[in-house]
Amino acid sequence: MNSTPTATTGIRTDAQLQQMARDHLWMHFSRQSVMTEGPGVPIIVKGEGHQIWDSHGKRYFDGLSGLFVVNAGHGRKRIAEAAARQAEQLAYFPLWSYAHPAAIELADRLASFAPGDLNHVFFSSGGGEAVETAFKLAKHYWKLAGRPTKHKVISRSIAYHGTTQGALAITGIPGMKSMFEPVTPGGFRVPNTNYYRAAEMGFAGGTPEQFGLWAADRIEEMIQFEGPDTVAAVFLEPVQNSGGCFPPPRGYFRRVREICDKYDVLLVSDEVICAIGRIGEYFACDAYGYQPDMITFAKGVTSGYSPLGGTIVSDRIYEPFAHGTEYFPHGYTFGGHPVSAAVALENLDVFEEEGLLDNVRTNSPAFRSTLEKLMDLPIVGDVRGDGYFFGIELVKDKATKQTFDDDESERLLRGFLSKALFDAGLYCRADDRGDPVIQLAPPLTIGPAEFDEIEQILRGVLTEAWSRL
Amino acid sequence: MNSTPTATTGIRTDAQLQQMARDHLWMHFSRQSVMTEGPGVPIIVKGEGHQIWDSHGKRYFDGLSGLFVVNAGHGRKRIAEAAARQAEQLAYFPLWSYAHPAAIELADRLASFAPGDLNHVFFSSGGGEAVETAFKLAKHYWKLAGRPTKHKVISRSIAYHGTTQGALAITGIPGMKSMFEPVTPGGFRVPNTNYYRAAEMGFAGGTPEQFGLWAADRIEEMIQFEGPDTVAAVFLEPVQNSGGCFPPPRGYFRRVREICDKYDVLLVSDEVICAIGRIGEYFACDAYGYQPDMITFAKGVTSGYSPLGGTIVSDRIYEPFAHGTEYFPHGYTFGGHPVSAAVALENLDVFEEEGLLDNVRTNSPAFRSTLEKLMDLPIVGDVRGDGYFFGIELVKDKATKQTFDDDESERLLRGFLSKALFDAGLYCRADDRGDPVIQLAPPLTIGPAEFDEIEQILRGVLTEAWSRL
Repeated sequence: MNSTPTATTGIRTDAQLQQMARDHLWMHFSRQSVMTEGPGVPIIVKGEGHQIWDSHGKRYFDGLSGLFVVNAGHGRKRIAEAAARQAEQLAYFPLWSYAHPAAIELADRLASFAPGDLNHVFFSSGGGEAVETAFKLAKHYWKLAGRPTKHKVISRSIAYHGTTQGALAITGIPGMKSMFEPVTPGGFRVPNTNYYRAAEMGFAGGTPEQFGLWAADRIEEMIQFEGPDTVAAVFLEPVQNSGGCFPPPRGYFRRVREICDKYDVLLVSDEVICAIGRIGEYFACDAYGYQPDMITFAKGVTSGYSPLGGTIVSDRIYEPFAHGTEYFPHGYTFGGHPVSAAVALENLDVFEEEGLLDNVRTNSPAFRSTLEKLMDLPIVGDVRGDGYFFGIELVKDKATKQTFDDDESERLLRGFLSKALFDAGLYCRADDRGDPVIQLAPPLTIGPAEFDEIEQILRGVLTEAWSRL
Repeated sequence: MNSTPTATTGIRTDAQLQQMARDHLWMHFSRQSVMTEGPGVPIIVKGEGHQIWDSHGKRYFDGLSGLFVVNAGHGRKRIAEAAARQAEQLAYFPLWSYAHPAAIELADRLASFAPGDLNHVFFSSGGGEAVETAFKLAKHYWKLAGRPTKHKVISRSIAYHGTTQGALAITGIPGMKSMFEPVTPGGFRVPNTNYYRAAEMGFAGGTPEQFGLWAADRIEEMIQFEGPDTVAAVFLEPVQNSGGCFPPPRGYFRRVREICDKYDVLLVSDEVICAIGRIGEYFACDAYGYQPDMITFAKGVTSGYSPLGGTIVSDRIYEPFAHGTEYFPHGYTFGGHPVSAAVALENLDVFEEEGLLDNVRTNSPAFRSTLEKLMDLPIVGDVRGDGYFFGIELVKDKATKQTFDDDESERLLRGFLSKALFDAGLYCRADDRGDPVIQLAPPLTIGPAEFDEIEQILRGVLTEAWSRL
């Protein structure tokens, strides 16, 4: 593969692209002022394995797999070829009363990975749409079950579940919602499993397991606050991303499942980030031993080579929709797109042939211990996560766990850290939707040599960041 | 190109695929009983131009472009190759604080097609997400403008704008919403422009132009009912799809624009179906001479070869987001996907090189007059539409315009018509979200010979349908 980066068309200079971007491209979750008043936007032109190149020819380590997406790595010719074959054969057909082989085979394959009786796959184009499907299906299911008032959904503080207005009602980040109020009614929040900040959350103290039961019991409390007859579902990520990687304490999901069963509330495992190897299993609920009623997935299922998402549903939830004239009046034009489905099948072949799940399971402890070396830096308060999915929380005072105020966070994260990490050759995310964290989720193909490379870059930049405080 | 259909993988029999579909594939907007209790689902395996093939090797005329999507026709090798080139170069990168050449170039190109100062493109993965973007942006814009109570949206009866719960609040089809209540607050409905049913809608009688002004004035009435200080935007398709192709009467949009200006309400042109040639222009607002504040698009922009959508926004709406620390906290992982953007650019090249807009403008009158021949059948009440986008309304009594009751509609549309049309070799849609209609939206590549083919198939099946009533 050509290692000299060229733009897709090869006919635009960087200056031309910057001008066109400034005039016409509205970025996502971003300040446009970086273009209108600032130096411009980084333009990424090429990817290969765990590396990406910008329009100046500079190379970076993709420490975030694009956006928790490119699990099998960039530049896979075989996946590109699978896409082209399907596009030429049948590029598009809807799943609206019709089907096509790629979606059928992918549904069959994903169902074979899913635990228990999660057998029915409703495709979408991405993760937010998959969450909307689960939310709407929960409401519809309870109405068919003769319990029409069960429509509320419970999720966790700081959790991100998507930006369409149903998914947004589940998202637990107030700053992403206030300007869009009123959003869909019925979203309620409970504490997440941030053990590092457990004391601030009101936990009286104890082991991670005790904290997990405390956090799970807050779900029961919220169900009681609202009334079980009004609660349809609980939406939880296996490992919560936003806030910086909160894995579930041992016993957390067992207790959550008990609570859901006790009150007839559905448990939705939102695995848009965690599925397809990120935690070392195809579906991360298997890593933590719980059985959800629905799983949402997206991102890694195609390693991002084409947009796809979906919702896997249990026999119990499916049953009322399976017969006669009943149906689920819901759908997406591009859901289960033939090219996306063919790409997903090829991507899953790559996973099997290269043993990527095994690679994650084998190397995750080394990844963790390499990152934990950074705990000797005064700015690093916590390293947490699982699989190939870690967050590093930054603090002002390690002893007291004091975090940064808004001004410091602005200066540190936006003013220095994001740019400094990128300049140092590491693309990852410095985030402050909760406390300031650096998020890492590299392609699942890497190993110990690359862990060291990440650690070295982080060490240099974080040392510099501390000296600037 | 090989005209012998083969499944994507080529290793599954039709019986195997049917079994896998029945066990694992949840179709969109469909009765699963066709698989669990019925004959199975039609499996489409190949497309070429305006033709598709099923898993038995039978060929069909694609009279719906998949789902108003495959505007340039199926099986375009050059688009498949463009997808593969981009997938190998850079398959995925987000637009979250970063950019890539394909999205930049596509934003520039689409902005060049858009009227007036609609210069800023916010990408999504599809149409519903594009509508969500417009809805959220309207709410956010008015909050920034110091008018935070302007959050309601007005749309038309029977109009379809998407299924995520914000878009669903704009969708005007009660049967798609009741089981999902409560959806996002703030959606209000006004009459559509179904001139054929104008009397039933309460219009006292008069010319199409008078009806159009009456219908537009109902928007003003609704703004007054709710209070202008609570209304953010009006969402209208140039030609409303659901209900069966309602073009705007002359003068309708001029009056709507006046009303929107009078009350400081944004006008969103939802062109998910109508853009990219369906009405003979890149953006259909140009066909009807109005200037919206935002345009949504999807479907035809890639001719469906890869999922993409977006929202084009005026300078005025963009301005408050362009500076300093302000930003629009919204985004989609797969929005502006590199492969989708590269595919869209190639698709637009096809449009230019083959003059597809001209083809539509030149041949639309012949398409209309060919379909109007069907008016000699007793079951055909109305033929309406524009460009390559027509609806044929079926009636029980032509003189009185009496429509079918629910049982008849069930027997006629689901029991006979959909299957009979398909068996006769025409894939299109028999729909009863409003009154029963047959919807036609073929690829933009066809001409008079294909119009005759469509008319002949319809004539045979509709004659048979009448005889069975």
